[in-house]
Amino acid sequence: MINFVSFGEVLIDFISKDYVRGLKNATSFDKFLGGSPSNIAVNISKQGFKSAIISRIGKDPFGEFILEQLKNYNVDIKGILQDEGFSTDIVYVLKSKSSPEFYPLRSASLNLEIQDSFFDIVKKANIFHFSSWSLSSDKNLKNTLKLLKVAKNNNVLIGFDPNYRKILWKTSLEIEDVLKLIMPYVDFIKPSLDDCTHIFEENKNEEEYINIFHEWGVKNVILTLGEKGFVFSDGKKITHFDSYAKEVIDTTGAGDAFWSGLYIGTIIGLDPIKAAKLGNAFSAEKLKYVGAICDIKNYKDLLKEYL
Amino acid sequence: MINFVSFGEVLIDFISKDYVRGLKNATSFDKFLGGSPSNIAVNISKQGFKSAIISRIGKDPFGEFILEQLKNYNVDIKGILQDEGFSTDIVYVLKSKSSPEFYPLRSASLNLEIQDSFFDIVKKANIFHFSSWSLSSDKNLKNTLKLLKVAKNNNVLIGFDPNYRKILWKTSLEIEDVLKLIMPYVDFIKPSLDDCTHIFEENKNEEEYINIFHEWGVKNVILTLGEKGFVFSDGKKITHFDSYAKEVIDTTGAGDAFWSGLYIGTIIGLDPIKAAKLGNAFSAEKLKYVGAICDIKNYKDLLKEYL
Repeated sequence: MINFVSFGEVLIDFISKDYVRGLKNATSFDKFLGGSPSNIAVNISKQGFKSAIISRIGKDPFGEFILEQLKNYNVDIKGILQDEGFSTDIVYVLKSKSSPEFYPLRSASLNLEIQDSFFDIVKKANIFHFSSWSLSSDKNLKNTLKLLKVAKNNNVLIGFDPNYRKILWKTSLEIEDVLKLIMPYVDFIKPSLDDCTHIFEENKNEEEYINIFHEWGVKNVILTLGEKGFVFSDGKKITHFDSYAKEVIDTTGAGDAFWSGLYIGTIIGLDPIKAAKLGNAFSAEKLKYVGAICDIKNYKDLLKEYL
Repeated sequence: MINFVSFGEVLIDFISKDYVRGLKNATSFDKFLGGSPSNIAVNISKQGFKSAIISRIGKDPFGEFILEQLKNYNVDIKGILQDEGFSTDIVYVLKSKSSPEFYPLRSASLNLEIQDSFFDIVKKANIFHFSSWSLSSDKNLKNTLKLLKVAKNNNVLIGFDPNYRKILWKTSLEIEDVLKLIMPYVDFIKPSLDDCTHIFEENKNEEEYINIFHEWGVKNVILTLGEKGFVFSDGKKITHFDSYAKEVIDTTGAGDAFWSGLYIGTIIGLDPIKAAKLGNAFSAEKLKYVGAICDIKNYKDLLKEYL
């Protein structure tokens, strides 16, 4: 039994040491395990649940590093293909106090490949998670749809991160058409306002964004508003919740922490709103620390403290 | 009039800050302008001669950095294509006191492309330089041959760096066959003993290596022996020269410094052996400093000091 399986990018983040103007001027970088689906799998594993990743990396030093790190975090890596066909993805990030400039070098994760055994990983899971990255090439989209069908047929809960960015999109179809294809499978979508402005050409208000996602077939929408908290909608009622954050040291991975809490809430049987509140708690805790992967308190303590 | 033109890779070196076992364990990297043909062009320009590079880079932050650096060093960049088709090459290097582990991410420089105007750059030059990197894809080999023909027809002196490594080789033909095709154009080849062991499957002695290169059609061979100096052969006579180095701080770019001195010697009209001795002096000076690009004394002072 696997509690959680991510389908998507696991990669290397090269984060600049200096705060300079423009990535081209950064002179020194630190290397980290990265990729949002991977961060969530690590967070969930660190809380004592069984998590797995389905992805692809290169047979290169960075691929070796990724496997070593994931093994240390006790994440199941049987669904990670490592071969010579492509190189491990790298994202260079300019450290910034606002929205960071990034430059992606994508290879293996643009070419996600699935083997028959990967279907079994999904069938046995409580939750299946994927992001826009897993839709961002024709091959990835095709494989995501295959896995979504298997997940749906086996009553696996499905979460989708609509973190669409034009610079990462290599798919023939437009994002709107892909979303229409995907949404009917999705139990939880968690866009930020920023995601919405990237997805939709015209600016709309919060309720309009939420309604479109529901129209396209998604069950629950969690629209995050940064320091203003989040809005939860099950298609019948829209409710606003404040952020629990008191102290903000670093926002990296705060969205991934929210997902982690939401999914753990779901695994332990909370209703969707309570699960989202546990996500809110995870996110608030993460904001106190630097880096995407950090030592968040045990979820049982967070339940007592926040819910 | 251009004194020197390089055809080949200009790229980013990411050099690890830590001395660790294995590139995968390196946690922090510094970013530098790199690529042997580019280092030579920069060295020659820093000595007051006109140098140019023909190469390809990506339209990305690292490509921008390269152009900015080369402009600062006064290197002619009209022969550098920058487009969206490919990304700027990167080589990750594990800092090491022996031979460093490296991991190349090649894209733009595997796809060197030449425009008609690039032939004019070569026609106007005193010297044309290229390396095995510029032969290491079918497309690069084809374009190198075109440029070699133009150089030969215009009495441009031709130097070739046989820095062949199997890991970088994507060409359909084997290295030996490519060398047989290339050698008749070449006035100077400067292999190290290490290069020879990579090129030839069987170990041979110094004289045997030199004779094979001459048989394949090259005019002058400079076989470098590290701390033991170098051997010069014009096909009639083989002469050994000791190294001038007294102090070794960092060997990075010592071979490129040798090339730079050799070419400057040629530009100012020294005979091949004297030019090689100026190369020996440049290399000895470079060894006193850290990094591939450093402040080597003016060649006029080096002529007085060493020759």
